[in-house]
Amino acid sequence: MSATRSETDSMGSVEVPAERYWGAQTQRSVEHFPIGVARFRWQRPMIRALGVLKRAAAEANAELGELPVDLALLIVRAADEVIAGQLDGEFPLVVFQTGSGTQSNMNANEVIANRAIELAGGVRGSKSPVHPNDHVNRGQSSNDTFPTAMHIAVVEQIHARLFPAVGALRDTLAERAACFADVVKTGRTHLQDATPVTLGQEIGAWVSQIDFGLAALRNALPGLHALAIGGTAVGTGLNAHPRFGEVAAARIAALTGQPFVDAEDKFFALAAHDALVQTSAALRTLAGGLLKMANDVRWLSSGPRCGIGELRIPENEPGSSIMPGKVNPTQCEALTMVCAQVFGNDATVAFAGSQGNFQLNVYKPVMAHNVLESIELLADASEAFEHHCARGIEPARERIAANLEANLMLVTALNPHIGYDRAAAIAKQAHKEGLSLREAALASGFVSAQDYDRWVVPLEMTHAGG
Amino acid sequence: MSATRSETDSMGSVEVPAERYWGAQTQRSVEHFPIGVARFRWQRPMIRALGVLKRAAAEANAELGELPVDLALLIVRAADEVIAGQLDGEFPLVVFQTGSGTQSNMNANEVIANRAIELAGGVRGSKSPVHPNDHVNRGQSSNDTFPTAMHIAVVEQIHARLFPAVGALRDTLAERAACFADVVKTGRTHLQDATPVTLGQEIGAWVSQIDFGLAALRNALPGLHALAIGGTAVGTGLNAHPRFGEVAAARIAALTGQPFVDAEDKFFALAAHDALVQTSAALRTLAGGLLKMANDVRWLSSGPRCGIGELRIPENEPGSSIMPGKVNPTQCEALTMVCAQVFGNDATVAFAGSQGNFQLNVYKPVMAHNVLESIELLADASEAFEHHCARGIEPARERIAANLEANLMLVTALNPHIGYDRAAAIAKQAHKEGLSLREAALASGFVSAQDYDRWVVPLEMTHAGG
Amino acid sequence: MSATRSETDSMGSVEVPAERYWGAQTQRSVEHFPIGVARFRWQRPMIRALGVLKRAAAEANAELGELPVDLALLIVRAADEVIAGQLDGEFPLVVFQTGSGTQSNMNANEVIANRAIELAGGVRGSKSPVHPNDHVNRGQSSNDTFPTAMHIAVVEQIHARLFPAVGALRDTLAERAACFADVVKTGRTHLQDATPVTLGQEIGAWVSQIDFGLAALRNALPGLHALAIGGTAVGTGLNAHPRFGEVAAARIAALTGQPFVDAEDKFFALAAHDALVQTSAALRTLAGGLLKMANDVRWLSSGPRCGIGELRIPENEPGSSIMPGKVNPTQCEALTMVCAQVFGNDATVAFAGSQGNFQLNVYKPVMAHNVLESIELLADASEAFEHHCARGIEPARERIAANLEANLMLVTALNPHIGYDRAAAIAKQAHKEGLSLREAALASGFVSAQDYDRWVVPLEMTHAGG
Amino acid sequence: MSATRSETDSMGSVEVPAERYWGAQTQRSVEHFPIGVARFRWQRPMIRALGVLKRAAAEANAELGELPVDLALLIVRAADEVIAGQLDGEFPLVVFQTGSGTQSNMNANEVIANRAIELAGGVRGSKSPVHPNDHVNRGQSSNDTFPTAMHIAVVEQIHARLFPAVGALRDTLAERAACFADVVKTGRTHLQDATPVTLGQEIGAWVSQIDFGLAALRNALPGLHALAIGGTAVGTGLNAHPRFGEVAAARIAALTGQPFVDAEDKFFALAAHDALVQTSAALRTLAGGLLKMANDVRWLSSGPRCGIGELRIPENEPGSSIMPGKVNPTQCEALTMVCAQVFGNDATVAFAGSQGNFQLNVYKPVMAHNVLESIELLADASEAFEHHCARGIEPARERIAANLEANLMLVTALNPHIGYDRAAAIAKQAHKEGLSLREAALASGFVSAQDYDRWVVPLEMTHAGG
Repeated sequence: MSATRSETDSMGSVEVPAERYWGAQTQRSVEHFPIGVARFRWQRPMIRALGVLKRAAAEANAELGELPVDLALLIVRAADEVIAGQLDGEFPLVVFQTGSGTQSNMNANEVIANRAIELAGGVRGSKSPVHPNDHVNRGQSSNDTFPTAMHIAVVEQIHARLFPAVGALRDTLAERAACFADVVKTGRTHLQDATPVTLGQEIGAWVSQIDFGLAALRNALPGLHALAIGGTAVGTGLNAHPRFGEVAAARIAALTGQPFVDAEDKFFALAAHDALVQTSAALRTLAGGLLKMANDVRWLSSGPRCGIGELRIPENEPGSSIMPGKVNPTQCEALTMVCAQVFGNDATVAFAGSQGNFQLNVYKPVMAHNVLESIELLADASEAFEHHCARGIEPARERIAANLEANLMLVTALNPHIGYDRAAAIAKQAHKEGLSLREAALASGFVSAQDYDRWVVPLEMTHAGG
Repeated sequence: MSATRSETDSMGSVEVPAERYWGAQTQRSVEHFPIGVARFRWQRPMIRALGVLKRAAAEANAELGELPVDLALLIVRAADEVIAGQLDGEFPLVVFQTGSGTQSNMNANEVIANRAIELAGGVRGSKSPVHPNDHVNRGQSSNDTFPTAMHIAVVEQIHARLFPAVGALRDTLAERAACFADVVKTGRTHLQDATPVTLGQEIGAWVSQIDFGLAALRNALPGLHALAIGGTAVGTGLNAHPRFGEVAAARIAALTGQPFVDAEDKFFALAAHDALVQTSAALRTLAGGLLKMANDVRWLSSGPRCGIGELRIPENEPGSSIMPGKVNPTQCEALTMVCAQVFGNDATVAFAGSQGNFQLNVYKPVMAHNVLESIELLADASEAFEHHCARGIEPARERIAANLEANLMLVTALNPHIGYDRAAAIAKQAHKEGLSLREAALASGFVSAQDYDRWVVPLEMTHAGG
Repeated sequence: MSATRSETDSMGSVEVPAERYWGAQTQRSVEHFPIGVARFRWQRPMIRALGVLKRAAAEANAELGELPVDLALLIVRAADEVIAGQLDGEFPLVVFQTGSGTQSNMNANEVIANRAIELAGGVRGSKSPVHPNDHVNRGQSSNDTFPTAMHIAVVEQIHARLFPAVGALRDTLAERAACFADVVKTGRTHLQDATPVTLGQEIGAWVSQIDFGLAALRNALPGLHALAIGGTAVGTGLNAHPRFGEVAAARIAALTGQPFVDAEDKFFALAAHDALVQTSAALRTLAGGLLKMANDVRWLSSGPRCGIGELRIPENEPGSSIMPGKVNPTQCEALTMVCAQVFGNDATVAFAGSQGNFQLNVYKPVMAHNVLESIELLADASEAFEHHCARGIEPARERIAANLEANLMLVTALNPHIGYDRAAAIAKQAHKEGLSLREAALASGFVSAQDYDRWVVPLEMTHAGG
Repeated sequence: MSATRSETDSMGSVEVPAERYWGAQTQRSVEHFPIGVARFRWQRPMIRALGVLKRAAAEANAELGELPVDLALLIVRAADEVIAGQLDGEFPLVVFQTGSGTQSNMNANEVIANRAIELAGGVRGSKSPVHPNDHVNRGQSSNDTFPTAMHIAVVEQIHARLFPAVGALRDTLAERAACFADVVKTGRTHLQDATPVTLGQEIGAWVSQIDFGLAALRNALPGLHALAIGGTAVGTGLNAHPRFGEVAAARIAALTGQPFVDAEDKFFALAAHDALVQTSAALRTLAGGLLKMANDVRWLSSGPRCGIGELRIPENEPGSSIMPGKVNPTQCEALTMVCAQVFGNDATVAFAGSQGNFQLNVYKPVMAHNVLESIELLADASEAFEHHCARGIEPARERIAANLEANLMLVTALNPHIGYDRAAAIAKQAHKEGLSLREAALASGFVSAQDYDRWVVPLEMTHAGG
């Protein structure tokens, strides 16, 4: 009485858990690559993408007369279960396997074949009526399917997770900026007091920076829309119908609602994944912007009494296990740690992306994994930050006013009237003697009280409302 | 009828799943930081380390008269369950939380307190007779406990996983080197044919490089042995017994068998984690060496017919879903992808390590996570590579011999006898006219057949055994 | 008789070499920042850009009535000398100075003011009739001028150096691809023999990858075209005419022939330099592609006898000081080292780009420097590679033919006829017994000689010309 | 009448500027590698190291009977001129050349040979009586000499530049820490007010961190002391006297005063440069520490009125071209930009270090260059920072006192007396109602005035002097 069944591949037979749909090659990979098993299994996005791909391939093959319609329909039914997430447990493989993703492609082929066989009333492992290679993988190679699935997964995740989450954060910040358009405050350059800005302008710069990052990501999408499918083993399309790539890509576009097409140069599409490198770089740029924003938030809310203290942020949890009453900018900290992770993930992607040889880059899985992880982390952290920090940002108006009042750099408003050198002398005098700027200006003899009050108007200095 | 109970902290009360030991602060973190939940929960090494730390702290406090012995014993019993892995499900938090790890420190405090209360027959959440802050966290702050736990976890994993796994790979390669000490083959520099080496020498260089990486890691250990414990909130040790750090570190050393001590400068131990940065760098150096070795293996076994083809490696799985009979160097690919990941993880660690401010670096969790992940991946991949590739490496002796025979760089042996310029002319002539080196040498008139055969002896050229 | 003269700024007076145009602030920087002096002085591109900027600013101020026309004309004349390179020796400052580039902005102000004073017959250092701050720097701050100059310099260098140099390499490779469109050869995936490609296809993939990198760079240009000018100190435009940014940017566009405009959000334009981060990332992507190409070239030309040996590349210099007659792929090596440098430069740029605070990023100079260096190195190395390697690439036709003949992966052409499993068995049999594929196929009984010769046609397998 | 002379190598003859000592191979490199010429020529450290190496090699060969003593003496005389810097103009080559450094090795061979010929009264280019390959390069290959020179240069620069410069900064900071050992101030964690520290403790943590970085660098030295010399082309030592490596290394040790030895495994010494990778990593760790220190300095001196304002640093130059009287932390900015550069340089080194193949890593020059540049920049910037910032750091005692007075986290001193929860309630009450901590504590009823004044003593809370 055995809990396994035999499955065979071109190397021979392997025992596979009887209840599993996967076959010999998946099982070999399970046994040969026990690497990071607890954390590096493929998750929903890649599994779904493999399902989409296999369904589209079957449909394309049927349309082109390369696959009997009944077999194609069986494959479609099984692939739909993969797409829907019903068979996630049948995908046990991890990122660190063969660098072409062959084993995950075969995992999809085997699971879909066996499930289709079952739907047809056949025997798992019999390869009849549906053969994992000859039917499910028809007109395909891991070398074109896996990068195709990578692109599908990344594009879908960008749209499903990143754009909404970061977009919501961006919108909340824009709303905050609008609310505080009239809060005049000290600007800061070199960490030193500078001429005034409004809080709306300050927050608005964060919005612009996030917008820039999102635009960079949108710029990377066309590269991702170009799919390797149709290239088969080395880019030539050997053993695929000449129109297979085009038709399959159209099917993928229909299934996902994204404008996928087959890549113009399939050789390039297999040998390099520069669209992923560019996507990763855009995620890094976005992370850089979020890091800067989060740093600004925590510095502006530093204190509460011995820091800058110009912003108040929500108090979500006790800040210290030893200092009672302490509240920390924890959402900023989580987000900036995510950004540091994204920077590292990007370094992995760029390194991996440079290491192709001849017709193939064999760092595909690690590239896909890191891009997908960066997307997920940025989305999750942006959501948390938006909910638990951004929407609760409030100005500490008294502190802002007191700081502005004390700020010697209001002197800059005097430049056009008395020149840089005299203005400098006034500011230095005020600093040295602990005077207010007004006091020092009047004492200088270059500015009358009336002129001072006409010239030094912080709100006007911000040019707010343009 | 509710499945939750109320737990309180300094911010008020929170509903917690009734069956859980964790308390209010853990619950707040669960709710506020749903970031990367599927992949970034703390795993065994950090949970165990927190258990070790909390047990050691209780023992130290008891020894120093800071904690009643009965309470200390309750804490020790609960901590032992954490150490043993019986309460792993009680640690739901992820890496991306507060940057000091406060919430994970409180998670440990809360779980141990509630479990200790239960052991004492008390009511979970009552904080009596064991209070998570006043007793379990006695004399501690997250700011010193979390980095202490980071060091414990990293040191333990290096010893438990990395040294054995990479050491075994190193030993297997050394054994292969010894086996093939007499296999003379073409050396290659600039990818071009060069003077001969033995396969033993070639593999031996991989061994030396791995040894260098392991030595770098050993050099990083003393920094890791210095623990922050005793510094409490900012490094001053406020609210801890003056000898607490020293005694607690000694207890940790006893519990782990590793030579931990409390850090000389606690301010540095909280504000920066350069010991982790150096550890990460050593892991990167090791990864660089493994990458080079794996690349050599796959290039030397490239072909089988149109590449270098001088090595045979085990055929573990079918290599292609479209090209029948193809076998690929998949273990090399998995290992090199791991190395690429380690490079990226290291970039994250170095970035995070540079971002401390004043008395605290708040990128602690992401630093710990990446170092632990790199250790795990390098260990896992080294084991897989050793099992499924290294131990099966064999020379393809005919190909090696044929290559060596054809290699024009044997001409170098003539330098001392006829000078570089004449030797160069001979090699060029052979290359241009497709002659063997011997033919060209004799044709040059500078070398007799007898001299040639005496001077050009590949094995002697390797100085093997020298 | 003194070789210095006194120059003053708001801090007092400083002795400056009498023959120099620069003033007090430049001199202070020379004295305070002797960092990397031999290698990190600003070069032509930034000096020229500062000249362009200062000329444009003077013209804009004159047009807007902010500056007397005679003074503006003096400034334009002096700025033209800066643009033309006649005053390069007057720019002694290095990258590692104040992070806003203030000192280099003042260097330009001082040199142009003193040169304009001289042109007007005045006394250097007198600040009359042209004042460095009040006139040359009119309506400007270092915080907006320096990033404006950064963008000008980078855009100009991309057009002047990078596009032509990399474009020429790309075109030469495209020409090589066309020449060898009919050379059928072994494809390689996982470094293992794979189904055939043409050399034209193989080289064509390099062309596509370079095209992708160039496109990424073109995508980065719009971000660079947005100039900070008009933002002055913190982004508000304080002390500048409201239309100054717009008019100055238009002047810059006219002077350079590039579509520069003033940035929509000046606050963002000062506080972050994500356009440079994206540019650097695109340079990294391009470098990754060039690295892959150069690696392919050196591997394909490896040997000459014990490697792959399918390409011949120009022999430019003796390869070894000890191995006579050795020739190495040195252009590949120089280019790949450049790519490694570009990767590191990019890491610096991304790190620096993330470290802004509030209204200013103070890593401006190091960001500009690294982007400009990457452009220069990629351009130089591409030119050298094109001249001394790419244009001389030739196929080693006999070796290519022999390899193709031996390649067992031609078996893939049998899949559609006899199925994957039988094809695999044939290939394995051939491999094991050292047979040719044809021999093994016929021996299998599944393929007749006639079928074999009809089905296995390498050129057709490449779908070339398709 | 020509300004050139003919020089020959194994490829033929080349015209060389008549006044130059260099020969054919140097000239070929000048022509083939015009890459980054303005910034990437080898500087003193590498040229000197090549001189040291060539002198040591001649001495070793003479001692071992491999070179006539009179020729050796000629070589020594010429090499001494190289060492002394008299022939720097004869080294025109750049970093981006062949990846083994062959051309720079030949540059040294050619210059020394021609200069020695001249000293012997011979004709430049005649190769008589001193031949660049057969005599100057005797028993050597670029593959072992260049990495040997790399190690010599790096070790010498670490001792000559880095240790003194960073050591001086460290000592100045230690002196500042001692001066301010009694200045009690607000500690800060998470950028939020925390329990007090002394300024001495705060600065002391910077000292400890720099010490850690310097120790990491010292740990890297033994790897650098192991020299490749004696390995010749592939590590076997072919064509060198069996004791050549050992004797040459001893001579290098004598010439430099550093404990150089020949590497145990020469194959490893040619194929990988992990000692440089580790050195680069240690420089990165040091840079991380300096970055953190410089950030602390600029944040603590932020303001002067709207920031933290607890430190005063020297005012070295006007801070703004538009804001009169502004003074910025420019030394901090220069230093942190240097640190960002070192991070990038390190990324280049690690990448390059991982890319070796078989018997050789061909990224040697770019690795040496980046490590040397990082050393130089860190040394230069540390010197500037020490001179123009660190030694002038002063506490702003009134601001420090006011901040400490306001700091609610003094409440932590109450924990052991009234428990964490009550202490938390007091701090929150004070925060909410704008009370002083003392007022809130007394109002709580848990603390008497007498107890408060006995328990809450900031200096005691720092455990300073403890």
